[in-house]
Formats: sequence, C-alpha cells, structure tokens
Amino acid sequence: MKKERLFTPGPVQIPERVLKVLGEPIIHHRTPEFKEIFAYTRELFKRLVDSPSDNFVYFASSGTGAMEAAVANFFKPGEKVIVINAGKFGERWVQIANTYGLEIVELKYEWGKSVDIDQLKDSLDRNPDAKGVLFQISETSTGAYHDYKAIGELCKNRDTLVVADAITTLGVYNIKPQQEGIDILIGGSQKALMLPPGLSILWFSERAEKRLNPKGYYFDVKKEVKKQKDATTAYTPAVSLIIGLRESLEILLEEGMENVEKRHRIMSEATRKAVEELGFKVLPEKPAISVTAILSEFAEKLRKEMLTLGVRTAGGQDHLKGKLFRISHMGYLDMLDHFSAIGALELAMVKVLGKTDHLGKGIRAFQKAIVING
Amino acid sequence: MKKERLFTPGPVQIPERVLKVLGEPIIHHRTPEFKEIFAYTRELFKRLVDSPSDNFVYFASSGTGAMEAAVANFFKPGEKVIVINAGKFGERWVQIANTYGLEIVELKYEWGKSVDIDQLKDSLDRNPDAKGVLFQISETSTGAYHDYKAIGELCKNRDTLVVADAITTLGVYNIKPQQEGIDILIGGSQKALMLPPGLSILWFSERAEKRLNPKGYYFDVKKEVKKQKDATTAYTPAVSLIIGLRESLEILLEEGMENVEKRHRIMSEATRKAVEELGFKVLPEKPAISVTAILSEFAEKLRKEMLTLGVRTAGGQDHLKGKLFRISHMGYLDMLDHFSAIGALELAMVKVLGKTDHLGKGIRAFQKAIVING
Repeated sequence: MKKERLFTPGPVQIPERVLKVLGEPIIHHRTPEFKEIFAYTRELFKRLVDSPSDNFVYFASSGTGAMEAAVANFFKPGEKVIVINAGKFGERWVQIANTYGLEIVELKYEWGKSVDIDQLKDSLDRNPDAKGVLFQISETSTGAYHDYKAIGELCKNRDTLVVADAITTLGVYNIKPQQEGIDILIGGSQKALMLPPGLSILWFSERAEKRLNPKGYYFDVKKEVKKQKDATTAYTPAVSLIIGLRESLEILLEEGMENVEKRHRIMSEATRKAVEELGFKVLPEKPAISVTAILSEFAEKLRKEMLTLGVRTAGGQDHLKGKLFRISHMGYLDMLDHFSAIGALELAMVKVLGKTDHLGKGIRAFQKAIVING
Repeated sequence: MKKERLFTPGPVQIPERVLKVLGEPIIHHRTPEFKEIFAYTRELFKRLVDSPSDNFVYFASSGTGAMEAAVANFFKPGEKVIVINAGKFGERWVQIANTYGLEIVELKYEWGKSVDIDQLKDSLDRNPDAKGVLFQISETSTGAYHDYKAIGELCKNRDTLVVADAITTLGVYNIKPQQEGIDILIGGSQKALMLPPGLSILWFSERAEKRLNPKGYYFDVKKEVKKQKDATTAYTPAVSLIIGLRESLEILLEEGMENVEKRHRIMSEATRKAVEELGFKVLPEKPAISVTAILSEFAEKLRKEMLTLGVRTAGGQDHLKGKLFRISHMGYLDMLDHFSAIGALELAMVKVLGKTDHLGKGIRAFQKAIVING
C-alpha cells in the first residue's frame, strides 16, 4: 500500500467536500441553477477579499492567463512598468510585459531575495511615469515573500498600479486588496483555493478600472466583468471548478481568513525550524508562508526517497534545479499532515546520507514550534 | 481546518478507490450485472484465504451476526464447546453460546492475556466431547493475540471445530484457514477489509459442513451458501458493500497478503516501540498486529487531546474504560500515517502531563523500528 500525499505548491490536496461536488454530474452553464451558484461564489469571493466590489472575473485558464490579462487590459504598449524579478514568476512578468510592448524597469534580485522597499521607492521616484509595479506576493520558485503591504503603501499616492500575482497567496494570507492598496490581484484555483487547476481569478480596483483598455479576445476583462456581474460569462466557464469553488470558499470562510493565515504561518515556521534542526538552510531571507524552499545538494535524491515513502515535493526550477526542494503548506493540510512530510524527510536522509542520529529531531523542532504557538 | 483521522479498530479509513464506488448509483441486486460482481468478489475472497472452497457466505450484518450464525448453524443445544475468554469479544462468544444452550467450558484469562496452549491442550484432553473451540485471533478489546496456528494444530486430529473470530484479523494476517486447521472463520467489513460496517463473512471447512444444522431464519448458512454458490442471496444483500468489497479485496491482493501482514507487523511493532519509548506500557503480553492497546491513567484525557488535534483513537472497554487507549493499524493506513498518531500523542502529552522532554522521541523510536525492518 502506498499513498501519495501532495506537498507541492500546486496542485494541492483537495478537501473531501470539494472532491464530492467535483464528482457530481455536470450541469449546463446557461441554466438558472448554474447562474445561482455562480452569483453565490461571487458573494463568497467578496467576503474572502473583504471588499464589496464587483470588479473581478474568473477565467477558465491557469494563473498565467490572468497574469496576461492584467498586462493586456490595464497597460498600453510603450507604457513603463517596474517589474520585481526575483524568481521564475518574476521572470514571467518580464516575458508577458515584453510580449505586450511595455517598457520595463526591472528590479532584478538573486533568486531567494525579496524586494528592497527603499530600492523600489527610489525606482518609483526616478520613474514617476511608471504606470505599474508588477510582482509576486509569494514567489513560488524560491519561497520568498515580497511585502505587498509596503508596496501598496508606496504606490498609494502615485499614478502607479500595484499588480500582485497572488497565485500562491490567495487562500493563504488574509489579503484585503481594497484596504491594502492592491490594484490588480491574481489568483489560481490549484493553490490555496484547494481546487484542480483550470480556473484563474483577476480582481481590480476602482482606479485600475479607469485604465481598462482591453486587447485580444479571450482575456477581455471589460467584456467579461460586465457579463459576470450579471452572473454569466462571455465564454464557457469551467463549470465544475466554479461549483468546487463554492465549497472551497465556504471552507476558507468557515475557518476565517485570519485563522487560515495563522495556520499557514505556524505550519511554515514549524517546518523551517524542523529543516534547520536537520541541518538544512532555507533559501529565502524573508520566507513566504505558502511554500518552504530548502537548499540541499542531495535535493533530487531526497525527493525521490520521500516520494517512495508517499510524499511528493517540488524540486528547484531553472538554475536551482537539483539544488533545492520545496514543501508546500497550501491546500487541505493541517499540522499533523506535516509530520508525514518531515518524518519522510528524516527517513529519506537515512537512505541518502547514511546516518540515523537526526531521526525524530526535525519532528521535535516542529512540535516545539507548535507548542510555543499554542 | 480540522481533519479527523480514524485510528479506531473499526470503522477504519477507507481507500479513495473504495469510496468512489460506494458513491456510485446503486444497482439492483437481482440483475446479471450485480450477479457478475457478486461472483467475482467470491473468486477474490477465495484468493484472499488461499482456498478453492465455495463454503462461505456474506451476510448483511455486523460481525456479531456471523458469530451468532457460527454457533447457531454448527452446534446443537447441549453440545459442549471450549471458549477462550480473555476480553470483551471472548465474553461475547460466551453470551452467544449461552443463548443457544451450549455447554460451555470457559478458559477465562485476565484481559490482556493470551491463551495458554498447554492449558487448552489439557482442556481438550479432559473434554474429548468438546465439539468446538471458540476464540478470537485478535481480541480487539485488549490487542492480544491468540495463536490460531497452534490452536488449529491442536484440534487437527480431534472431533473439535476450530471457530475463529477473525473480525480484526482478516485483511491483517495472511490467514489460510484450510491449510491452518480453521473450521469456521468470521470477518467483518469495517475492519481491515476497509469498508463501512454492515457486511460480515463466514467461511467454513469441509468437516464443519458435515455438522451444518441451521437454526433460526436469517442466519441460515445452509440456505445462504446454496444461493451464494449460485451468485445470488437468500435475502437482500448489502449491494454497495459488495461492490466496495470488490475494490478492497483487489487492493489487498494487489499488495499481496504476505506484504499486507508484513506492513501491519512493522506498523504495530514500531508503534509499540514508540509508546514504550514515551513511557507507556502496552497491555497484552502477546500483542496482535491489528491494534495496539496502551495503558495510561490519563487515557481519556490523552484521547480527548488527540481528537482535538485530528486523531480519533478508541478507549478501553468495560472495566478497562479510562485505563487504556487503543491505536488501530487496520484500514487504509501506511507508515507515514502513523506519524500523525504518534506525533499527536506526543503533543497531547504536553497538554495532559505538562512536559516537553519527550517530544519527537516516540517518532524517533518508530522511525528506527522502520529503518531496522528495511
């Protein structure tokens, strides 16, 4: 018997309650029944981000689709944007902005670093014509956190849209875009929204609305938001994912986003304590609470052994391939689930490093971190 | 977010593959479609117990129903039976045998003890007219093991039926009733067969067949086995449980019963090492590999804390209520799942006993036991 447990930063483990509705017979998307569900999920989403605004759309796409929609709909060719690039997904902003002919001021950081807020302030001061700051709140490839509240604060009195890739943030942090100065917020279903991949979300502020200038066809935010405010869609929606979203949003709201953030904070901090106790170094200086990136020259061997035991982790990407492994805290995971991941890592170390002294010590550090946090 | 993990000796965690078919629309039991599934599960069951015999029946009942069927169908009022009584379920054999007017020679042991084989031999010698020996292979209330192979061997050349309650044995031990001298073997769905409660199984040997003498109506083994050999049933079968049984038997056979037994042996031995390292004493002298019964004056407090963390264990029964807790190894559980149970116990000890020195030590002992076993 072998179980496989997803500790990957998407897809993630899905609650039984969501799986149940995903397995139900499909309904047609142009029915009053679906319209009612669709409208209800929109009400739930407003509660999730604590904003009464109807300025948001679902797309049947991966998160990257919504990133493209942000660039294509809210910026014009030739406009200047500042891109915080400190990993694979920062790099993706650069690629998309290039595709749409924007002028890019790149704040490039070594992978694992977080944005230097003073440097960003300088850049904003030197580029008063910058129309946007594009960044990740949680850079999934490195597990680094970019302080979105500080960025929001910096841009509050400037004509600069704050464009946050929140794909591994939404459903983790108690993020309130309207209050925290975010203009465009992007989420994806297969992360902390605890759904299969295939649904993205794009939320935008009132001042972003004034800049709406759609390009392309499918990712037309103007057309789509008009339809969705009326509980329908321009094109065929991802029906079962919307129905699943109803459940996952309810689950998150029942726990309460403050508690959800607290849980992720404890699980990620305890995981860091555990792997540090086991002699590893965590890559980022300012770690996000969604995923922990752990450096090891034996990363791939450890991952393979952990998988044999029943725990699937993610590896490093691009130039960090083979140099780190990542344990996600997103999805349907609680404290006890993490014992599987840490316990499997300890057992994998026996095979890969040929030692046993460390056994139980990571778990102990994890437990102590939990006990301290009550 | 709180998950509840069943570490109870029934019901147990059910594999997704079984849950999936349990959730399918119900089919009618008098159809060729169901008949085919029914016949197929019978072929699988024969492989499970490594016997080509068709002498077995499913009942829509709990395991106790099949225990009653064993007494009612294979013994006559006034006949003498030896009952090994070392726990709640040994006591149940006494109650059922009494109900059917059998003469009982009781080999009574303190809860936690296992049968003394020499004593049983003496009893058999002194009671050559004993028509049966009734016992549990795994006494669920105490976690004690009664050596079924030795009992089978003892009765091989006597006119004494070996009646084994294998409710927490079937799907745990690689039991081969025909080769190992068992005459009547009883199983229940909600244990290691990884199904919801509601289905029992009664297998009987050729020499038991000669003693068939049904009483009552519903639990008529003679009538039922005739029907079931023809892939139908006397009364309405538990349709979805039979369909689930197809999956769970396939899962067990894919792993192979030798490996299944080995897995339970490692998980239970490692659990004993863990709880002993944590300062507990295991109740039975000869522990079964299906469930571990752990003595503690704080049993109920520990259970309550573990449940808060997401692990449901069982308590003590009857006079051991409040004095022990039981961690089951049956069902859809692997090594890593046990980290949750042991890790939760360690955390519960912090709350209940107000100490932290022990943290990680039970897990470490568990891991070392796994490493030693490869």
